[in-house]
Amino acid sequence: MERSNTVFIGRKPVLNYVLACMTLFKSGQENVFVKARGQSISRAVDVVEVLKNRFMPDVEVAEIKIGTEQVQSEERNTPSNVSTIEIVLKP
Amino acid sequence: MERSNTVFIGRKPVLNYVLACMTLFKSGQENVFVKARGQSISRAVDVVEVLKNRFMPDVEVAEIKIGTEQVQSEERNTPSNVSTIEIVLKP
Repeated sequence: MERSNTVFIGRKPVLNYVLACMTLFKSGQENVFVKARGQSISRAVDVVEVLKNRFMPDVEVAEIKIGTEQVQSEERNTPSNVSTIEIVLKP
Repeated sequence: MERSNTVFIGRKPVLNYVLACMTLFKSGQENVFVKARGQSISRAVDVVEVLKNRFMPDVEVAEIKIGTEQVQSEERNTPSNVSTIEIVLKP
């Protein structure tokens, strides 16, 4: 799962992830993938919008994919579904 | 803003909005637009995924657009930015 051109969005402040995207672009990555699950999906969109509007206006959203993953929680025995988003950015 | 082929996602349960999408498709709409802002963006993705996986497997995601809107809150004098999503569905 872990790829050097992917930023996984969690519960940290938006700017942390914006900085992570900028660092990947500066390191010469062709594409940067912003991925999130569940409640973090909103923050993933925030990260991309802040990156575009405030720091890297030339960045383009090449593709947005949504999907569903099954997650095994520790509290419940049955797996539950969680929505996912993947936003592909080009410099 | 209000269009007869658009479902605006708020804070109600996901299935309410899934039903609203199905009703629009049943009424003969070519495209259904699912729109959300801020924290509701995650729920918009949930709505589309539940609709596809449980109720209307033939529905296709034709396009996903993200953006930013300025919102004037009552608490603060300065407008604040909020992220938006628009998911276009085809039957």
